[in-house]
Amino acid sequence: MDFEHGGCIRGIDGVIDFSSNVNPLPFPENIKRLFKRSIETLRKYPDPFCSDLTDVVSSRLGIDREEILFDNGSVALIYLILCAIKPESVLIFEPTFSEYERASKAHKAKIKKIRLDERFMVPISKIESADMMFLCHPNNPTGNFLIEQRESILDLPCKYFLIDEAFIDFVEHEERFSFLPLFKKEKRLIILRTFTKFFPLAGIRIGYLVADREIIRMLKDFKPPWSVNGIAIILAKTFIEEETFAEKTKALIRKEKVYLMKGLSELGFISYPSATNFILVKLKEGYSSKEVKGELVKKGILIRDCSNFSGLDERFIRICVRTRKDNKKLIGALRELCSKS
Amino acid sequence: MDFEHGGCIRGIDGVIDFSSNVNPLPFPENIKRLFKRSIETLRKYPDPFCSDLTDVVSSRLGIDREEILFDNGSVALIYLILCAIKPESVLIFEPTFSEYERASKAHKAKIKKIRLDERFMVPISKIESADMMFLCHPNNPTGNFLIEQRESILDLPCKYFLIDEAFIDFVEHEERFSFLPLFKKEKRLIILRTFTKFFPLAGIRIGYLVADREIIRMLKDFKPPWSVNGIAIILAKTFIEEETFAEKTKALIRKEKVYLMKGLSELGFISYPSATNFILVKLKEGYSSKEVKGELVKKGILIRDCSNFSGLDERFIRICVRTRKDNKKLIGALRELCSKS
Repeated sequence: MDFEHGGCIRGIDGVIDFSSNVNPLPFPENIKRLFKRSIETLRKYPDPFCSDLTDVVSSRLGIDREEILFDNGSVALIYLILCAIKPESVLIFEPTFSEYERASKAHKAKIKKIRLDERFMVPISKIESADMMFLCHPNNPTGNFLIEQRESILDLPCKYFLIDEAFIDFVEHEERFSFLPLFKKEKRLIILRTFTKFFPLAGIRIGYLVADREIIRMLKDFKPPWSVNGIAIILAKTFIEEETFAEKTKALIRKEKVYLMKGLSELGFISYPSATNFILVKLKEGYSSKEVKGELVKKGILIRDCSNFSGLDERFIRICVRTRKDNKKLIGALRELCSKS
Repeated sequence: MDFEHGGCIRGIDGVIDFSSNVNPLPFPENIKRLFKRSIETLRKYPDPFCSDLTDVVSSRLGIDREEILFDNGSVALIYLILCAIKPESVLIFEPTFSEYERASKAHKAKIKKIRLDERFMVPISKIESADMMFLCHPNNPTGNFLIEQRESILDLPCKYFLIDEAFIDFVEHEERFSFLPLFKKEKRLIILRTFTKFFPLAGIRIGYLVADREIIRMLKDFKPPWSVNGIAIILAKTFIEEETFAEKTKALIRKEKVYLMKGLSELGFISYPSATNFILVKLKEGYSSKEVKGELVKKGILIRDCSNFSGLDERFIRICVRTRKDNKKLIGALRELCSKS
């Protein structure tokens, strides 16, 4: 498997991980309790239909049950979509999340890559027609929304719009940005959501999508039963109802994003505006992402070297917003690095 | 999704589950402890390569690391194989595990079904050529090995042999039956193994396959990264090393299978010889699987009605071997049922 993502911390113990964009808040007490008493859930086959969870999400979002599909993380859904829909051509902006391209390649789709403009926005005039457009919304690794008006994208000549909203829960007033409100009228939309970022469940894998019931029916034929494990199901159900956790998270991101950006700017690094919980950073002259990553790892800090994102290079790193204690360490370590050279 | 499997216990609380063929022994203490202290594993991306686990299995089985692939349960691997290899035609015996057919249908393979003979053995003379043969070894739901000599199957005209050894860990002297010893010389073999039966991890999903490295390379292209969750990885690794649990399990199955078969025979039901941890039962005249299932559910016992297995009918049920206390309840409940009618 040819990829490097954030969170590759094998062999690096006790490191502070700024490289994978997962919520750093402690697990709420009721989640901890629920988890600890769930051992018998390991033994039982999970509900292949995720019925309870689908009920909860359906009523929260006001989307019909038949328009919701859970799977083993939202990345599993990307592969499932490619496998079932088999688009002949796909539109991928760059830089963006690398799995769109990897999955499309595996399924032999013709890949049309479109470079984002210098503000990392979709150059609308350059859009070609394609069976499927991938839109990371907000975009990973740039952190921004790639289009000014969500409605505008629907005029573009694509059969399906795969809108990956993995990071939208971190966005302030996300309902103004999400494509969910457009879904009722626009059945070409396939909207991906995950429980592995805002709800920090990257290790247990669970995500879902919202799509037309005909699409869901197609996808289900290719989906192995029991693809969502039982622990993920019960934790996700409880997490959705955790209002306090959500509020605390948004407050943390709001405050700490400012703190980090200020610190980075004082060091002469450029932070790109971010709608979500991570920041794309352009290093100042004389620094390379590989070198900065290497130096920080020595201090127990892991960041994402962005040089392998197609459309970026060794001037870029990505950092996830963490707690003040961690963020302070990062800025401190970067300051030290800058003063040395 | 159109299927009924064992273990569908939604809405039936506190039932004794004889329908899903999962080890009923309590979790070993070290597994319990490991699980309870693993909450931070939920937050971290799992190792996409399952490196540690692959090391352990590689050295245990004497198979190269590059010939082993882990995924989200062995059923996920069945879908992955169909997706990557895209066999034009497949050979499926009946009755057998229904997911071979479901996955093959989804991937548009031509399905050649071959009815097992009256002893539930492969009628070798009827074998046609096909791209892929599915062999459930031992077979679910019949519990037996479908062929006298494992070697004999390799003379048959198939490009790939998918050998599903999901239940082989329960077999006495399994090394005499497993296809693993043949693998070094025979690269058409794809051998599936799981951690959700013998190691009771059905709820957390983990399985692997052994195949030629070229096949593994193909499969990896279509496999989403992080498809195996972190909790499954650490539990599986510890379970493999649990020698006592394995011994206890085999001793239990040996003893309790005899107990159940004796009880069933006394009631006039026919048990088919089983090499593994479940028993296919032919009801005596005047009883139907649906009725027996319904009556037992009222007593808090769930069995597998086998009428929806293609090749079986309403005269068949399947029961999993559980602990003496549970098995006694089952036989008692069946006795009551028989005396009533």
